Amino acid sequence: MKTVGELGEDPLVAQLCEGLALAKNVVVGPGDDCAVVREGRSLILLKTDAVVEGVHFLPKAPAKKVGWKAVARVLSDFAAMGGRPGEFLVTLALPKETPLRWVRSLYEGMSACLAEHGGVIVGGETTSLPAGAPIMISVAARGAVTARQLVTRDGGRPGDAIFVTGFLGGSIKGKHLSFTPRLEEAAWLTENFRVRAMMDLSDGLAKDLPRLAKLSGCGFEIEREAIPRTRGCSVGAALADGEDYELLFTISDRSAKKLESEWAASFPTLTRIGTLTENEGDNLSGGWDHFSRPS
Amino acid sequence: MKTVGELGEDPLVAQLCEGLALAKNVVVGPGDDCAVVREGRSLILLKTDAVVEGVHFLPKAPAKKVGWKAVARVLSDFAAMGGRPGEFLVTLALPKETPLRWVRSLYEGMSACLAEHGGVIVGGETTSLPAGAPIMISVAARGAVTARQLVTRDGGRPGDAIFVTGFLGGSIKGKHLSFTPRLEEAAWLTENFRVRAMMDLSDGLAKDLPRLAKLSGCGFEIEREAIPRTRGCSVGAALADGEDYELLFTISDRSAKKLESEWAASFPTLTRIGTLTENEGDNLSGGWDHFSRPS
Repeated sequence: MKTVGELGEDPLVAQLCEGLALAKNVVVGPGDDCAVVREGRSLILLKTDAVVEGVHFLPKAPAKKVGWKAVARVLSDFAAMGGRPGEFLVTLALPKETPLRWVRSLYEGMSACLAEHGGVIVGGETTSLPAGAPIMISVAARGAVTARQLVTRDGGRPGDAIFVTGFLGGSIKGKHLSFTPRLEEAAWLTENFRVRAMMDLSDGLAKDLPRLAKLSGCGFEIEREAIPRTRGCSVGAALADGEDYELLFTISDRSAKKLESEWAASFPTLTRIGTLTENEGDNLSGGWDHFSRPS
Repeated sequence: MKTVGELGEDPLVAQLCEGLALAKNVVVGPGDDCAVVREGRSLILLKTDAVVEGVHFLPKAPAKKVGWKAVARVLSDFAAMGGRPGEFLVTLALPKETPLRWVRSLYEGMSACLAEHGGVIVGGETTSLPAGAPIMISVAARGAVTARQLVTRDGGRPGDAIFVTGFLGGSIKGKHLSFTPRLEEAAWLTENFRVRAMMDLSDGLAKDLPRLAKLSGCGFEIEREAIPRTRGCSVGAALADGEDYELLFTISDRSAKKLESEWAASFPTLTRIGTLTENEGDNLSGGWDHFSRPS
């Protein structure tokens, strides 16, 4: 019998989405950073994301940082759509033996991140886990975006310049627990430029750029040496490590120079790493797959 | 060091909610069946709920029923607020060795339940789990409710008649995997009567009625022999088993007779089990506590 590990994450999600009915008010369904739903004149962003002990954080990780990460991942997805955060629901699945102090620190981390970047916790749920099971924190949230600023993954066109923010690779050394979601940068970007396609880098450029290009019906060419690397990281690590939580986006070649000159000095570094192409250009392999990664 | 098991579920949730900032548009925050948020002229319901292997379903449970249960629990919470379901996000946390067929059946069950009761899946996430960890399905959803039909847990008044739908107890024999969320009944009820307080019975009447009474600032008196019991169940089981997913609500004593005479024959049985009181009346103990239940 085939397992989800043999199939891999993207084909699994594709199979699960096949049979789904879609309602009329759904502007963007499964497959992008967030779902987008029309509510009267507003566009609502919906997102759910989970962190699991042993997968997204180690048992010895400070609970406050785990809490920060759990909500910052969702904030990063709102940023990737050009949106802003709203209300959050938190599901805690905990073994009974979890120290109370750990849970309080977790909440402190979540609250600190929301206080800094926007968003409020309005509810949630606690559930017990069998003894020894890994802690799981599932965060669901509602955000909002204006029609003008909404960016999906599928709007890229051949010739578009491909940009990334920040430095890639080596996140496991600490950034994965303390990264800054790029809400401010995305808000400025979508306010001032016509961003064609955007997503946040969570599974590594090698996994995420092909996703964006494929949804845009394009290929891509990248200059590997141009990829902005975290100090001490190889190009391979920058491509494949994952959990960068930086923005990956494309804009027209014509706007690229203007963007580079207007990008604020206070923002993280901005790097043009390549171009979307008409035909399949480069190939990339590697990056994080939740299921087909060897155990 | 104190653990969450020593503290218990309700005090844990209370502690976690203490430090939370609340935004102006939040009509109902943590502590009710759903959070309620104002969006323009609409009232939005937000809910998250998880089922965990070994806690909410056994490994041998049919995946289709597990899927049904995962979304029906959320639908039951929308019913409890007088609302209707909208868009759903599904987070699947699975070990790599999970059979693909199991996941497909799970989705069939979720889709079947939503097709019958309303609501669409618009996105979600898959994440891997360490080998051997229990499967977890976390469902987040958005619903809607009219201001006139919105019912919270805290509106009960002394003298109110206390009602429950259906039969209580013995859910573990099968109903917990195949129950019908009481959306239709709740819609009729809130359309035609001024329901003062309502919730769905998930942790057992013995746990849930004191919660509703306390939030309403009331005590309660119940007639134990009047509690509608599933065939073969003792009063104790009807009080404490949990996972009934029936409606528990209060309305004025004056309206109670009218309600009993107008309640549709096609609806599940309706039973008046007692009265809210000014002072602390009965005590109930037992029911399901996720954390302080002995292992």
